[in-house]
Amino acid sequence: MLARSVEGYLTRSSWIRRMFEAGMELKRRFGADNVQDFSLGNPDLPPPAAVAEALQALAETASAPFAFGYMANAGYPELREALAQQLTVEQGVDLEAKHVVVTCGAAGAINVVLRSILDPGDEVLVLAPYFVEYGFYAENHGGQLRVVPTRARDFALDVEAVEAAITPRTRCLILNSPNNPTGRVYSAREIADLGEVLLRASQRHGRPLVLIADEPYRFLTYDGVEVPSMLAAYPYAVVVSSFSKSLSLAGERVGFAAIHPAIPEAGRFMDAMILANRILGFVNAPAIGQRILLAALGHQVDTTIYARRRQAMMQVLTEAGIRFAPPQGAFYFFPEAPGGDDEAFVRFLAEERILAVPGRGFGLPGYFRLAFCVDETVIARAAPGFARAVARAQA
Amino acid sequence: MLARSVEGYLTRSSWIRRMFEAGMELKRRFGADNVQDFSLGNPDLPPPAAVAEALQALAETASAPFAFGYMANAGYPELREALAQQLTVEQGVDLEAKHVVVTCGAAGAINVVLRSILDPGDEVLVLAPYFVEYGFYAENHGGQLRVVPTRARDFALDVEAVEAAITPRTRCLILNSPNNPTGRVYSAREIADLGEVLLRASQRHGRPLVLIADEPYRFLTYDGVEVPSMLAAYPYAVVVSSFSKSLSLAGERVGFAAIHPAIPEAGRFMDAMILANRILGFVNAPAIGQRILLAALGHQVDTTIYARRRQAMMQVLTEAGIRFAPPQGAFYFFPEAPGGDDEAFVRFLAEERILAVPGRGFGLPGYFRLAFCVDETVIARAAPGFARAVARAQA
Repeated sequence: MLARSVEGYLTRSSWIRRMFEAGMELKRRFGADNVQDFSLGNPDLPPPAAVAEALQALAETASAPFAFGYMANAGYPELREALAQQLTVEQGVDLEAKHVVVTCGAAGAINVVLRSILDPGDEVLVLAPYFVEYGFYAENHGGQLRVVPTRARDFALDVEAVEAAITPRTRCLILNSPNNPTGRVYSAREIADLGEVLLRASQRHGRPLVLIADEPYRFLTYDGVEVPSMLAAYPYAVVVSSFSKSLSLAGERVGFAAIHPAIPEAGRFMDAMILANRILGFVNAPAIGQRILLAALGHQVDTTIYARRRQAMMQVLTEAGIRFAPPQGAFYFFPEAPGGDDEAFVRFLAEERILAVPGRGFGLPGYFRLAFCVDETVIARAAPGFARAVARAQA
Repeated sequence: MLARSVEGYLTRSSWIRRMFEAGMELKRRFGADNVQDFSLGNPDLPPPAAVAEALQALAETASAPFAFGYMANAGYPELREALAQQLTVEQGVDLEAKHVVVTCGAAGAINVVLRSILDPGDEVLVLAPYFVEYGFYAENHGGQLRVVPTRARDFALDVEAVEAAITPRTRCLILNSPNNPTGRVYSAREIADLGEVLLRASQRHGRPLVLIADEPYRFLTYDGVEVPSMLAAYPYAVVVSSFSKSLSLAGERVGFAAIHPAIPEAGRFMDAMILANRILGFVNAPAIGQRILLAALGHQVDTTIYARRRQAMMQVLTEAGIRFAPPQGAFYFFPEAPGGDDEAFVRFLAEERILAVPGRGFGLPGYFRLAFCVDETVIARAAPGFARAVARAQA
């Protein structure tokens, strides 16, 4: 009855599902408070007060005609304008409202970009480790994922490996910085080198290769690390982002895609993305989420809380003898799995009632991911369990 | 730079765009109040008070952790349960929460169903006239639209024509009742006959043919007309709907897809739709829209207003000598174009500052569509213009 691709996904994804169910079972048996869950990137910080204030204001106008009716598929004009102003500062490139389309989160934005540019059989480059959903997004639109390695241990960009992976069928590269799962922020030097490689490949093939810069964690870096501008480094970049993390609004699904104003096809590319936003069934990003975003833009959750948790986690992992590259941004660690077998180590952790995700879930076995959207007490409670799991892995 | 399919869409859709722009130009020149706009199905009635009350309640809990965080991709469990209860009454078939997935409106739901069942080259049947977006939705997932005529003038279901159009590649039929653009509600007899044809075809091909029942206007019928149950008539029906019209929440994008609990593959089909909802980039229907819906379920806009407008419109059209089948539901008329050329007649109307959509925009030239989500004064003001346009068309 089902599409062949979807039959395949349901079969393949079953082991991740089994892990999730094993975690649920642990919580049922021992109580949620007795399980240290580092498996999910669901932000636990409360939304800033501006969100509640915006909802209050919306309640007062909710009984007017067209209060939440259709708007232009690209989003409310005043929100596009506000986003363009923010992006102009962040990216150092002058954007106008017409260069921004409001989307159902970054996931919606990436699907909108891919629908706009992929012909069947086209290739989409990603850097391992990578957010596993990218593979589905590419295949939704007839594309094929090609995975390019990053450098071992510190996950630095391997620009030569990117260049070697480009073929005449390569249409785009998805780059996530700050990175989920590694916490890596690619440096200005790395991004500049990447831009040169992409520009050369675009000239060689006579068709621009698109860089999809997936940046929902741009607001969240540590130790003064800065996220360089993607638009300044490469004109055929599309910046996509969401407010799931910065405003703790993951469920409401608001984000955007924005392009460089100076590319020759800018108008037609925007038309394509707005059309894709419509025909993929999004129609437009949620009206209420858009209105909240307009009111709350510039506000964000208290990032010092994430910074403290990162410190606490570094201490716990170091004391347990687990090796890791300190995350420069986002809220994940991607340490090396003691003993080398990530699936086994994650199982040992589960036996200590600690939930994590094996690196193979991100296309890179031998590592594991810990999300620190959890209270510091959870991190502290997990310390002895980490130590015991390491001892078992190395036995 | 763009995908070939999207290049094609941008070129083809340009005449509709020109019409839209011509309408905007009329409003600029003469003022919006001096243009009678029947072109858009954007509900103008205010949302019921329950929507404002729900927003007020949400504002009070918006600063709690996870207030609007990720939930299960299928939607909030309590909303799925409430929708299942409502569907059990409407469809006369016992549904549980697990048979319902909450989606980004009906457009999101249809894309979710199609992603779940279409292999490249599969055929999707629609009845002319049809909502033109269906063609894009089919092509998003590698499908091909096949258009089946309905009976002239009253748009009754031509079950023989449906049967004749079915091939081994036919995977589904999209049926919209009450219908946009005709206002037709298919009778229990028509639906029963259709169910038999689909069942025979499913048995012949050894694979169930899916009936996508697109029902956002189920709440809005006239003269006591009832919308029959699709799930009762055909077990492989998927009911999709939204609250865009019933709660005037078109911009917030909340709807659902629901299946018959008794089909053998029910669990796997739901798993596929929930996966599709996730990977298409919706992730989940908007959290705030879902919470509003849970609070406002059972409420609806004041439908007596639509009933009065329908009466007023019937009188205006009758007096102008325009022939039409009175709509049994929804908020559209689909009259015959006087003179026979729908594009010409819509142009004559525009010269009277009346905006309508030609039937060819719905795959059926010779007719035109009028949306009556407009005040009764707009209908009254348009009366002389309709009469003059008819005179010109018949000159």
